[in-house]
Amino acid sequence: MLPAPLLTPGEIKAAADRIAGHIRPVAVAQAAPGHFLALEFMQHTGSFKARGAMNFLLAHREAGLLPDAGLTIASGGNAGLACAWAAREHGVRATVFLPQTAPPVKVARLRAYGAEVRLTGARYDEARAACEEFAAASGALASHAYDHPLVSAGAGTLTDEVVDRVPDGVDTLVVSVGGGGLFAGVATAALERGIEVVAVEPENCRALHAALAAGRVVDSAVDSVAADSLGAPRVSQSALDTARRAGVRPVLVPDAAIVRARQQLWDERRLVVEHAAATAYAYAPQPGERTAVVLCGANTGLADLV
Amino acid sequence: MLPAPLLTPGEIKAAADRIAGHIRPVAVAQAAPGHFLALEFMQHTGSFKARGAMNFLLAHREAGLLPDAGLTIASGGNAGLACAWAAREHGVRATVFLPQTAPPVKVARLRAYGAEVRLTGARYDEARAACEEFAAASGALASHAYDHPLVSAGAGTLTDEVVDRVPDGVDTLVVSVGGGGLFAGVATAALERGIEVVAVEPENCRALHAALAAGRVVDSAVDSVAADSLGAPRVSQSALDTARRAGVRPVLVPDAAIVRARQQLWDERRLVVEHAAATAYAYAPQPGERTAVVLCGANTGLADLV
Repeated sequence: MLPAPLLTPGEIKAAADRIAGHIRPVAVAQAAPGHFLALEFMQHTGSFKARGAMNFLLAHREAGLLPDAGLTIASGGNAGLACAWAAREHGVRATVFLPQTAPPVKVARLRAYGAEVRLTGARYDEARAACEEFAAASGALASHAYDHPLVSAGAGTLTDEVVDRVPDGVDTLVVSVGGGGLFAGVATAALERGIEVVAVEPENCRALHAALAAGRVVDSAVDSVAADSLGAPRVSQSALDTARRAGVRPVLVPDAAIVRARQQLWDERRLVVEHAAATAYAYAPQPGERTAVVLCGANTGLADLV
Repeated sequence: MLPAPLLTPGEIKAAADRIAGHIRPVAVAQAAPGHFLALEFMQHTGSFKARGAMNFLLAHREAGLLPDAGLTIASGGNAGLACAWAAREHGVRATVFLPQTAPPVKVARLRAYGAEVRLTGARYDEARAACEEFAAASGALASHAYDHPLVSAGAGTLTDEVVDRVPDGVDTLVVSVGGGGLFAGVATAALERGIEVVAVEPENCRALHAALAAGRVVDSAVDSVAADSLGAPRVSQSALDTARRAGVRPVLVPDAAIVRARQQLWDERRLVVEHAAATAYAYAPQPGERTAVVLCGANTGLADLV
């Protein structure tokens, strides 16, 4: 594996050059005067994770460090899909580990992206252990869901795309925080441009708030409607470091507001997003604040929208 | 009622000035290099109809011809919603006629936009007759679904918005055709700019093709999955006249392609649209053709998307 670079504006620009032509440029819609929506859920695999996965793969390939055994990851969620997609795009093997209890629909989606899916153990920590063993034995490159500078830098490419598409710019980028990969990348690029970042977490799924309160990365309880995407019990050190910088505002929103925001996006704009994206949309801008909200994914069921 | 103006590029520019600030500017997403999607389903009321309804209302108000009795229409679909919305935005009464068999969900939506809903007769022609009687008796202004130059001119404002948002422009705008209000407006503005228009109809819901074949507006059978929005048995004279101009290509697509296109938009881009919008997306561009497809509405159920 590549020695991990620092997450810097320069690394994010390098990521943008690297993944250009491989990812879909984000579309930006005006929600109201001064308020914009970044429709990143339209990205390959239905979430922003495609950016980081593609940057991770290409950076390793550039360095001649992509093994024949390909990539491996333990994730049935957006990171797993993104890893499988990026690998298939470049004819690389992807081996994805899931617990035996994983929903068949997740397994089917991963296989549709050409991944080899291995079902191991009853819980995710067992799948993760199996993934690590596999990486060690086969030489496959372990892909990260969020805690790697190349993954965060890939996500951070969103900032310039969004800001450059908004006439007259914005004051604030609004993103939801799970493990903090998206947040750290987007914020690193935004603060460089003098743009503030609102980091939104569900009230009961607040690994970043917990880390800020403790002064270090700590385990935090996960109990939120958005847990499927945002449910990392710990943020990355990089996310914590970024959150301490001037210009970052951490915010909590209750689950009820997330559910309402998701329903509103459908009722009022005919957009279907996952709860993680609705978490950012649940933020209420300050008077006069010009915002762009990153709608980060839409890997969601439709049954509960009416 | 205002004497009907001709549908001209000048009328469309006047409409754009009139409705600016009232409607949502359309967001445009790149689907692939050279191919773009106009996300007009994000418009107020979930379809492009808001543009025409707002232009119709404002043009009458400007002329001092908006009666105290407000607007009236017989429509439980996108035109009815747009009429109710435009009226509410300006504190104007809207009286909407539906047959007694109309689905309660449509009635509820109209009432949510503040419309007075009157359920009359068993079929739409009875509701239409009741609407006409009401207009004559009350002085209410009968709003049109598609066959009025002000309504078409409103829809035509999409062309400049879409084309000006696409870097390097497009060769072709792709729109679906029902009664032809959207098509006539969009095409009038597009041909003026040297942009071709592909007019897409379902194979078995082809009022425009039938009119072109007959050399005049004729009744045509309606039997398509997209009939809820595109099911007008006759196109407007204006749509027929426009379709005869050089630069317009009428195209038919089978229902199976429409259903597939709608599912693809969800599977590959996480967009939910109604079948009318998927009808345009079902068009297969020619090699090298740069296209923008108008995704015109998303007033649709979610139950059949998986």
